[in-house]
Amino acid sequence: MQDVYPSRFSTRTEILPRVDPVVYCRWDATAPLTRAQTDQFETEGYIVLEDIFSSDEVRQLRADTQHMLERPDELDPYTVVLEPGSDNDVRSIFRIHDQSAAIARLVADERLAGVARFLLGDDVYIHQSRLNYKPGLRGKEFYWHSDFETWHVEDGMPRMRALSMSVLLAPNTAYNGPLMLMPGTHRKFATCTGETPENHFLTSLRKQEIGVPCDQHLEAFAREHGIVAPTGEPGSVLIFDCNLMHGSNSNITPLPRSNAFIVYNAMQNRLVQPFGNQPPRPHHLATRDARPLGPVNKIPKTENIL
Amino acid sequence: MQDVYPSRFSTRTEILPRVDPVVYCRWDATAPLTRAQTDQFETEGYIVLEDIFSSDEVRQLRADTQHMLERPDELDPYTVVLEPGSDNDVRSIFRIHDQSAAIARLVADERLAGVARFLLGDDVYIHQSRLNYKPGLRGKEFYWHSDFETWHVEDGMPRMRALSMSVLLAPNTAYNGPLMLMPGTHRKFATCTGETPENHFLTSLRKQEIGVPCDQHLEAFAREHGIVAPTGEPGSVLIFDCNLMHGSNSNITPLPRSNAFIVYNAMQNRLVQPFGNQPPRPHHLATRDARPLGPVNKIPKTENIL
Repeated sequence: MQDVYPSRFSTRTEILPRVDPVVYCRWDATAPLTRAQTDQFETEGYIVLEDIFSSDEVRQLRADTQHMLERPDELDPYTVVLEPGSDNDVRSIFRIHDQSAAIARLVADERLAGVARFLLGDDVYIHQSRLNYKPGLRGKEFYWHSDFETWHVEDGMPRMRALSMSVLLAPNTAYNGPLMLMPGTHRKFATCTGETPENHFLTSLRKQEIGVPCDQHLEAFAREHGIVAPTGEPGSVLIFDCNLMHGSNSNITPLPRSNAFIVYNAMQNRLVQPFGNQPPRPHHLATRDARPLGPVNKIPKTENIL
Repeated sequence: MQDVYPSRFSTRTEILPRVDPVVYCRWDATAPLTRAQTDQFETEGYIVLEDIFSSDEVRQLRADTQHMLERPDELDPYTVVLEPGSDNDVRSIFRIHDQSAAIARLVADERLAGVARFLLGDDVYIHQSRLNYKPGLRGKEFYWHSDFETWHVEDGMPRMRALSMSVLLAPNTAYNGPLMLMPGTHRKFATCTGETPENHFLTSLRKQEIGVPCDQHLEAFAREHGIVAPTGEPGSVLIFDCNLMHGSNSNITPLPRSNAFIVYNAMQNRLVQPFGNQPPRPHHLATRDARPLGPVNKIPKTENIL
């Protein structure tokens, strides 16, 4: 398969154009998003949905994820990633839709999966799910990156036809290290330098140093596109394109920042062999046995899903 | 001399009451601050002054400090502190009022020194000055601390009768790691645990781990007092009490965050022997030959100082 987004092959970085659509369906009145939301996703690469869950649903989701954080011993140990330099502070838990009934229902919920199907123009499956927990006081930063760059090079995701949904489980304020985005950068592919080390994911998930853009491209992106940091209350959903440049600062406030992170990929965009020089990352980071979220999983909008 | 604020002596932390005033002068119409500003400083421990410098003055100040950053080889090498883990990125330059004519005039300027004399009710001198430069992309956090705790234990500052002024030299936005404050915490003294290591300043200025409050006190402070992060344009001046709890997150944005930091201490509060177990820190971190900023340094408000 031709590699239309080569990265980590050269000692020189460059900006390549996106050759894929952003929104794969044409908008009409039956779409699960408004025309303005669809246009914003197309041009800026992200949208925020507010008040789509009831407070009961949010409460149960928070209780379930809190339980996972407090009892990591009940989880698959491979799915638990700690903060850099810590033996205790949980940074991320992967594959949460396989380890929590509430999250399993959440990812299949039509209010989320339906939007993913519309934007990606295809049946969808879960490429990755994770609980990102930036603890209070000692939460470290996530440096700038395009998720697609890693998923392409390390997992073998062929094209830009995936998106992420971040479901806020705690207030994201300006102060507790909220996700920062550079709107519009999803239309450009900033290649990275450096060979991927063996078992890179064992360190990169704690602190990413390979697969990050060069300073010059980040400075140019920030100058041209600016930086936004959507904040919100628990239950808000931030949806962003797989190639949007994003990152977050550290969190020294005592307020943890907690998000359930769900990556939907189009069935037509299933993984192939990685485009980099390493074997594929393990299953809990990148699903290789893709099964579409089918109608049996679709729970009517009126039912309390959680 | 009796130690009214003992810290780093016990394995238990506690909250001690402040036994010193915050504002040492009674306000009247001749004061260099409004009554509202004076009241805010008394109750919240900080105020922000905007538009007190002309754009020409700000421009020259930025040019002079930029020169120091670009030519650290021209500076006293002891005064230059690098970012943790870096051999190049400047984090702080100390004693800038001795190394830059523009800063020497700035610290003596009546618009700043006059406010310090009023709030501290005494002649003042410069306890410490520094350029805090949080570089873009790789600027690390400053963890929560009370400056007074360090100045008392490591430098021998007897009482809470000092204040800091942070003169913004670059835009401080919500995203580039602005200073965060917990308003009102200047009225409480959170003691710290841990013995001060020998030559602690050689590491603490890069990353502070001793002289920081315990998690429980920080959580209680944030719950009770909240967190603010004043943002502003170059030339704004943030004035805060020596005992106000403050810190800042990392900065992964490409926008550097740069502030000139000036600490005024009351002449009656000159340093004595440190209250901790180590010899005093060197002169460039804590002035021991205090000389009041005298009338000869007072430049009339109408004159262009920079």
